[in-house]
Amino acid sequence: MSDDVRNVLAALSQVAGHWQPHRLTSINDYDVKVVKVLGEFVWHTHPDTDELFMVISGELTVRLRDRDVVLGPHDVFVVPRGVEHCPVAEQETQIVLMEPRGTVNTGDAGGVMTAELRELR
Amino acid sequence: MSDDVRNVLAALSQVAGHWQPHRLTSINDYDVKVVKVLGEFVWHTHPDTDELFMVISGELTVRLRDRDVVLGPHDVFVVPRGVEHCPVAEQETQIVLMEPRGTVNTGDAGGVMTAELRELR
Repeated sequence: MSDDVRNVLAALSQVAGHWQPHRLTSINDYDVKVVKVLGEFVWHTHPDTDELFMVISGELTVRLRDRDVVLGPHDVFVVPRGVEHCPVAEQETQIVLMEPRGTVNTGDAGGVMTAELRELR
Repeated sequence: MSDDVRNVLAALSQVAGHWQPHRLTSINDYDVKVVKVLGEFVWHTHPDTDELFMVISGELTVRLRDRDVVLGPHDVFVVPRGVEHCPVAEQETQIVLMEPRGTVNTGDAGGVMTAELRELR
């Protein structure tokens, strides 16, 4: 395998901890990230960008103010910019995120769950 | 399931023909596409954008002028802008592509394999 090929599952196997985004690769000025999630995140909004979620394994609920969006493996959902959301996973769930470089995981909310984007080994 | 959730496998099951990109979803001004591929595409370049390939099933070889990049399931590879490439699949292979809206599949090469982006039902 070329060293610029990234395998999503191999990348996720390197990820320790929950809600810690790791950079899988980049396309132009967008980052593709892998994250393991468990429990409830924080309600937040990205005022300037959409955010793409793809579930690899497990189940992710993206709570919106008017409904819950439940995602299983191979499901893709885009939270439109400016839409308040709160990701929740009752079991450990592996996801891929895509968003412009520099997008902060907690958006406008900040707080203790704010995490720097990490690089994979 | 919410009607704005898209399942990659369900989407691919709707795709007839090879090398026919279908829009799965969009994030900002980027499109995420599903495509079934078989055989050899054409050598081409996207002068203005990187292009992301993720293999869902099968095996995709992205031929570059100096090497072949072989991708299996869950492998992700980004062809940098301006790098000539030719995708090839010896078996039917299902892939996800991501690139800016309006990116033409054959890039600067044009020709008979140029395909309009199609919408899923």
